[in-house]
Amino acid sequence: MPRSGADARRRLQQAALELYQEQGFDQTTAAEIAARAAVNERTFFRHFPDKREVLFDGEADLRAALMQAVAEAPEGLEPFEILLCAFRKSARNLENNRPFSEPRWKVIAVTPALRERELAKHAWLTDAVAQALRQRGVDHGMAGLAAGTGWAAYQHAVQAWIDDPADGLDTHLCRAFHDLRALFTSALPMQARPEH
Amino acid sequence: MPRSGADARRRLQQAALELYQEQGFDQTTAAEIAARAAVNERTFFRHFPDKREVLFDGEADLRAALMQAVAEAPEGLEPFEILLCAFRKSARNLENNRPFSEPRWKVIAVTPALRERELAKHAWLTDAVAQALRQRGVDHGMAGLAAGTGWAAYQHAVQAWIDDPADGLDTHLCRAFHDLRALFTSALPMQARPEH
Repeated sequence: MPRSGADARRRLQQAALELYQEQGFDQTTAAEIAARAAVNERTFFRHFPDKREVLFDGEADLRAALMQAVAEAPEGLEPFEILLCAFRKSARNLENNRPFSEPRWKVIAVTPALRERELAKHAWLTDAVAQALRQRGVDHGMAGLAAGTGWAAYQHAVQAWIDDPADGLDTHLCRAFHDLRALFTSALPMQARPEH
Repeated sequence: MPRSGADARRRLQQAALELYQEQGFDQTTAAEIAARAAVNERTFFRHFPDKREVLFDGEADLRAALMQAVAEAPEGLEPFEILLCAFRKSARNLENNRPFSEPRWKVIAVTPALRERELAKHAWLTDAVAQALRQRGVDHGMAGLAAGTGWAAYQHAVQAWIDDPADGLDTHLCRAFHDLRALFTSALPMQARPEH
């Protein structure tokens, strides 16, 4: 994409985020976003298929980066340690881009149509992470379980970082994985005893 | 609701599930569902606001039952043990109703519009579970982390049960929580060391 195209794309994303914050997602039209970004509506639709997608750019890149981070984590780590490595790498982008990440997160949280899109994206990324763990030789079922629960811990950390920016996302992420471990090692052995 | 209303509601759910399986969700209209259930289209819309909701009945009841199960789990359990108790209770309905649960799960898995709806419902139920843990005195952050990761383990178990019906859902659920614990206790201590 020529430089002017990339600029317009970024302006459209910023304009959409501002308008969703100011007047709500449902009340905002693609034409308004285009106007604030100083492009025409046709340009909006050349970059994004709809109003939702403007906040979900770069997913294929994120997916590839996560899978690569899992593949490149040091040898000899357990699945959750591999995931923590990969999520810490991925979280740097969110952290470095907080002026965009934070309002984006908040708008998505209060907009059901965006929240559904976000959750679907997360399910897709979780599947990719599970696949990357399997490619490292982790058992099929264990990889799915570790990816699903690890992703939940990652999202918990992002929420904690949004709520409490005094600590960095990396600190929140390490804390979530540490807490998860504490939650399990403190628990009594759990057996498949029948319930009455 | 009078008995005839409850019957029509069940017939509509069964008809929708059959049609979504046979010809796909996108290709099915509310009128077709109503016709197969031997009611008119107006009756469909008296029971359900749209084609998606027909597969997501009883959510408020499920939410209340989950919260009650968390509240009523024995004293002295750790958060993950409380969750396992609550999920085992909740899973009985899925298990007893496998002839409906299984095709419903499969249709949702291949239909993005239904999958998004399902994920949003799960996020809402996860929040309820976290809230119920907090009402038992579990720390705010720990409750969110345990609910999010515990829910992911529960869904992993449901998927395993769909894929491998030789074992019951209760067995898959206990196994998922056991495996999660094994994944953590085998890992080396994880520290918040900076990455290079």
